[in-house]
Amino acid sequence: MSTPNSGDTSSDKTKTGGVEHPEGEFRAIARIRRHLEGVPSDEVGIGDDAAVVRSGSSTYLLATDLTVAGVHADLELIGLDDLGWRAMTASVSDMAAMGARPSRAVVAVAGPSSTDLDRLYEGIGAASGAYDCLVVGGDLANAVQVVVAVTVSGELPAGSEPVLRRGARPGDLVFVTGPLGAAAAGLRHLRKRTSDAPQALFDAHRRPRARVAEGAAARVAGATAMIDVSDGFGADLGHLADASQVGFLLDDVPVFPGATREEAIAGGDDYELVFSAPLRRRVLEVFECRDLRPPLCVGVCVGDAQRRMLGDLPLPARGWEHSWL
Amino acid sequence: MSTPNSGDTSSDKTKTGGVEHPEGEFRAIARIRRHLEGVPSDEVGIGDDAAVVRSGSSTYLLATDLTVAGVHADLELIGLDDLGWRAMTASVSDMAAMGARPSRAVVAVAGPSSTDLDRLYEGIGAASGAYDCLVVGGDLANAVQVVVAVTVSGELPAGSEPVLRRGARPGDLVFVTGPLGAAAAGLRHLRKRTSDAPQALFDAHRRPRARVAEGAAARVAGATAMIDVSDGFGADLGHLADASQVGFLLDDVPVFPGATREEAIAGGDDYELVFSAPLRRRVLEVFECRDLRPPLCVGVCVGDAQRRMLGDLPLPARGWEHSWL
Repeated sequence: MSTPNSGDTSSDKTKTGGVEHPEGEFRAIARIRRHLEGVPSDEVGIGDDAAVVRSGSSTYLLATDLTVAGVHADLELIGLDDLGWRAMTASVSDMAAMGARPSRAVVAVAGPSSTDLDRLYEGIGAASGAYDCLVVGGDLANAVQVVVAVTVSGELPAGSEPVLRRGARPGDLVFVTGPLGAAAAGLRHLRKRTSDAPQALFDAHRRPRARVAEGAAARVAGATAMIDVSDGFGADLGHLADASQVGFLLDDVPVFPGATREEAIAGGDDYELVFSAPLRRRVLEVFECRDLRPPLCVGVCVGDAQRRMLGDLPLPARGWEHSWL
Repeated sequence: MSTPNSGDTSSDKTKTGGVEHPEGEFRAIARIRRHLEGVPSDEVGIGDDAAVVRSGSSTYLLATDLTVAGVHADLELIGLDDLGWRAMTASVSDMAAMGARPSRAVVAVAGPSSTDLDRLYEGIGAASGAYDCLVVGGDLANAVQVVVAVTVSGELPAGSEPVLRRGARPGDLVFVTGPLGAAAAGLRHLRKRTSDAPQALFDAHRRPRARVAEGAAARVAGATAMIDVSDGFGADLGHLADASQVGFLLDDVPVFPGATREEAIAGGDDYELVFSAPLRRRVLEVFECRDLRPPLCVGVCVGDAQRRMLGDLPLPARGWEHSWL
């Protein structure tokens, strides 16, 4: 379908704003799938945070994410180093959302020949070190706009299985690894040129952190389904519920100090993890044992897939989506 | 360094033309590497056709390649389906050049919302089928220009080692899997709107074929170093010689019927493989045994890394390179 912002890459549409889009991207993905063969039944293909590949006796995961200047990141507000960090984080977070460990990255960078690659790779290298995810290859090409595609491979401990989006069952509790909306609030302050906003908000937008340790803890704690908050909490929990064919009743959404409730619901790029798990005590024990902040239990899954409530109101599945005809 | 075509993406610069560029991209890669940690000694990182990752008892390979509309492909001359095929081929060819089998692909597509994704994925899907390389994931984003980043993972038979660029030794023979220049000649005819040029030339530009079976045969036949002809024969053999610290004496370059000698030397995107191997008979036997066209022995490696001769003349290291400051 045609959308008002076709081809628009102006800065007021940059991602973390939680702009509402019609069903463009997800319909496009459905159409794309018709051209592609399915994967073996013990693997995972298109439609989860990462693909799962069985290779002989071992398993590895693959995920790719695009970061486009003017779309996902406004280079008048953040540096190319921040864009590099964010690009790595987006793909590493896909591994976190499977309960996997990021292993290696390949980085494709298209951009004008004037692009400050040193600064971009400063951020990519910093993220590579922070996530212990070595950059082992890449490609460079000229283009009119900076486009970074990071593909990360990931691994699981022997005998472990990834946590998919589709395993949530009625009665499972819904957890989130931390309060939401910080990245969107940070972007709001950057746009307003606020000088006295909390540093944590700016950091959340410029240098978000993938929750790798938390994802592994959730897997060990028996998570039945998991997703990262990249498009927005409402949208991403919606994806999990769609894949699992469940609904949910949420008590509330945890809001990051300084963020608005709307930013917590619809702002993307927080990279907190949302997961379902049957046993609250087990979840809290594993996180405590691993010195991780206890995740917040925000609600429960229900069998009626149409019921998706935040308190007394339907939870809007708002979040980021690109428009495609 | 600054180059005349900074940010230029006009169609007369599209890739297969064999345009000569100053040392932009490769210097940029050298600078980039300073920001990144090295890989374990039994792995392969930046600087070969693909990265080699050891994971427990198994090994997988990773390679990523960008295809940018207006840079690598002119959409006034070829279709989006062809662009999709070419994007898959570039990454699959990286696996071929390691002697590996492509296994899975993740595809990141940025472009205007008007991009005909159906047509693009028709080509991606066709290549996926042709190369037996399942597409297991991807990402979509809006951008002003179509940019496709395909990352392919690859595998080797148990106990086999990949063929790197750096193993050629003085005395090794230099082979190429077929005559060169067809893709560049095809592009020339497309630009001239020639209607009666051989179909094979158009096909070579629109739907080039990665030599996966040939790469595996070369590995089995004892290839000591290998690379695919993506930038141009002169440039790519130069990369192999640089990595191996050898020179070479070539008798001649095999020219595809209808192509010029210059196109055979400097035209990219042929995706034929160039490899070094010590034993001519062994090479011919393995290719024959596998029902593959016999590779052409074009010369020999020598110890003097400065001597890089085609007949009596130095072989120009011409080929495609993107410009970066």
